[in-house]
Amino acid sequence: MSNLPVDVPRADVPHVFLQSGHDRRIAEGHPWAYSNEIRMDASAKALAPGTIVVLHRTDGKPLGVGSFNPHTLIAFRLFNRNAYRPIDEAFLQARLARALALRERLFGQPFYRLVHAEADGLPGLICDRFGDVLVLQLNTAGMQALAQPLLSALEHLLAPPTVVLRNDSAARAIEGLVAEVLVAKGKAEEPVELQEGPLKFFADVCAGQKTGWFYDQRDSRRFVARLAAGGTMLDVYCHTGGFALAAAQEGATQVDGVDSSDAALALAHRAALVNGLAARVQFHRADVFEELQRLAVGSRRWRTVVADPPAFVKSRKDLGSGLRGYRKLTRLAASVVEPGGFLFVASCSHNVEAAAFRSEVVRGIAAAGRSGRILRDAGAAADHPIHTHLPESAYLKSLTLQLD
Amino acid sequence: MSNLPVDVPRADVPHVFLQSGHDRRIAEGHPWAYSNEIRMDASAKALAPGTIVVLHRTDGKPLGVGSFNPHTLIAFRLFNRNAYRPIDEAFLQARLARALALRERLFGQPFYRLVHAEADGLPGLICDRFGDVLVLQLNTAGMQALAQPLLSALEHLLAPPTVVLRNDSAARAIEGLVAEVLVAKGKAEEPVELQEGPLKFFADVCAGQKTGWFYDQRDSRRFVARLAAGGTMLDVYCHTGGFALAAAQEGATQVDGVDSSDAALALAHRAALVNGLAARVQFHRADVFEELQRLAVGSRRWRTVVADPPAFVKSRKDLGSGLRGYRKLTRLAASVVEPGGFLFVASCSHNVEAAAFRSEVVRGIAAAGRSGRILRDAGAAADHPIHTHLPESAYLKSLTLQLD
Repeated sequence: MSNLPVDVPRADVPHVFLQSGHDRRIAEGHPWAYSNEIRMDASAKALAPGTIVVLHRTDGKPLGVGSFNPHTLIAFRLFNRNAYRPIDEAFLQARLARALALRERLFGQPFYRLVHAEADGLPGLICDRFGDVLVLQLNTAGMQALAQPLLSALEHLLAPPTVVLRNDSAARAIEGLVAEVLVAKGKAEEPVELQEGPLKFFADVCAGQKTGWFYDQRDSRRFVARLAAGGTMLDVYCHTGGFALAAAQEGATQVDGVDSSDAALALAHRAALVNGLAARVQFHRADVFEELQRLAVGSRRWRTVVADPPAFVKSRKDLGSGLRGYRKLTRLAASVVEPGGFLFVASCSHNVEAAAFRSEVVRGIAAAGRSGRILRDAGAAADHPIHTHLPESAYLKSLTLQLD
Repeated sequence: MSNLPVDVPRADVPHVFLQSGHDRRIAEGHPWAYSNEIRMDASAKALAPGTIVVLHRTDGKPLGVGSFNPHTLIAFRLFNRNAYRPIDEAFLQARLARALALRERLFGQPFYRLVHAEADGLPGLICDRFGDVLVLQLNTAGMQALAQPLLSALEHLLAPPTVVLRNDSAARAIEGLVAEVLVAKGKAEEPVELQEGPLKFFADVCAGQKTGWFYDQRDSRRFVARLAAGGTMLDVYCHTGGFALAAAQEGATQVDGVDSSDAALALAHRAALVNGLAARVQFHRADVFEELQRLAVGSRRWRTVVADPPAFVKSRKDLGSGLRGYRKLTRLAASVVEPGGFLFVASCSHNVEAAAFRSEVVRGIAAAGRSGRILRDAGAAADHPIHTHLPESAYLKSLTLQLD
């Protein structure tokens, strides 16, 4: 870059400058700079997406080192406030080791989200661990550019027999990256087995939703399963059976799981068999809204109803219709809860704030002619930490209610 | 009351009318009417505080039955939307039975908050259960007026050997009620023993803070104790030892508890002895802010630091200073956390919203020169349910962070 201030700290990486007046948020701890905050001159625009750069204030003071993409709204993602720190294999390995130490403290078994992007100091990286199998999402050009040192760091740290790159998220298109699924190491032909508490489950890490399994609802599955013991449960959007089998294991008398995916239901059924719970669990394929509408006009009711749908709001323009979707889902699900029974509703939409989600759930319950109380208002499990300055990284909201 | 519409449903209780345009919030599910929303004519003003009344829309349509206090901002508290329902012993017993059934489903032992006011359909009533001992707070004139049928209903339901009325809350003064502590049944001379998981604790139900024990942090104690295993812990505002002993039990190597109350520390020490944990736990009396300031300039650091203070914001006018208090407490507490260690900070101030609390905690951590990630953002345990239309009844906020 031309016209560098004399105190620019290092010559091995390019330098990018904020426009004046935009440094405060980052100085306070926020890890991003937006493209309209950056002096987007010709040399900045010419940088390849994913280049590691030093970000400076207008007066030349370095703010930190991170990845840069001149073509995305989030143009700069901070890796380290020490602008002199090389972002190399040693750096990545130190961050991975920190993330691993936390998970090993939290969990007794190697089944968890190992890396949760910015909150673990690794912007753009998701890594779910299924014992010997690591499933990665490289969701930014910056992390994609670091793929080789990253894989090497993981090898030194964990020597995983199998590494799958689930590089097919929507986020990658925004970053100008191709959508692809790669087996970087080992084999991944069969669904992967994972352990959660006393139960075994199966995850299709190559073709299932996201990484094939949702560790984020681990604590909610345990909480709801305890409530469900001794009664019936309906689990809509049951996916591969997480809530349904946890409830059956805890003593739910009969569990009905509904999902639109044959592939997910096959894995749920396989897990029911392996855990010796098939006699008390039935899975069937249906569109959830159609099925709930049918059930709501019928007479059958369930002690506990779980509705953990995929994101209804994938972008801000879907906000209105998505919020109405959560309200309608709640109304229909509440309609089939026994008096005194329990309802669990969740949203994994980044764009839906907790207060807005709660408001729609409360309106949905009222629209069903029900009243009740909120027993638990919870986010994701602790292996999905929240960045202190990115409250929106608290993407998962859930409410558990008792209905009168 | 004079000038009743012809369709007024019952003659056994007085009738109170909303001013026009104020019925929507209540119709949607909110359980209160404020004094400025009510047609406060001479007959309404003349009603004794705590009178059970039927609330009507301007056009005479009944909205429900509840308690009325013409002298308080919250003038009407809804008991039942069915305006014909007598609010008598049978009604109270049905609500108590519903609350009891929920707690018996949630917990294996009779130690919990049995009634959490509006969320359990019993406005103004708090009841904590310590096995054979029930500790009640009658916090409104309405609930005070129902004391006799309430005690009778509890007798029929649970026949508790001991009932204590901790009628010394600040809320009672607002309602024009005297502050007093009464033993309504049995004896309450010694601290009461309670069980939480594998541990015994002691609660001074007659003179301790609130009801003598804080069931609301049950889940947080378990979560933090797991993190604390294998390292040291500092527990400021340790009260009667809940967090400290849970951590010691889980394997914390050395726990230091600090509180300003000799009486609370004596119960904490007694619990340490009874649980065989006295060798690894030390309690000492100090002003928490003074002690933390002293420790922050020293060299000793702890793996886990817990700061669960009493409410800093007791009324809205304290909001600014209270928020600064949470920030300062966080800054000082974060200063004495080991690199990679854990910090738990809580606020039980009704007047502090979750986002404001989080913002102060994040600023406090930055002011200590630390960074980290939020592992858990949690409210009270499920025996403290949240009324669907009173988000402010979610008074308890807590954040657990890992600090770099």
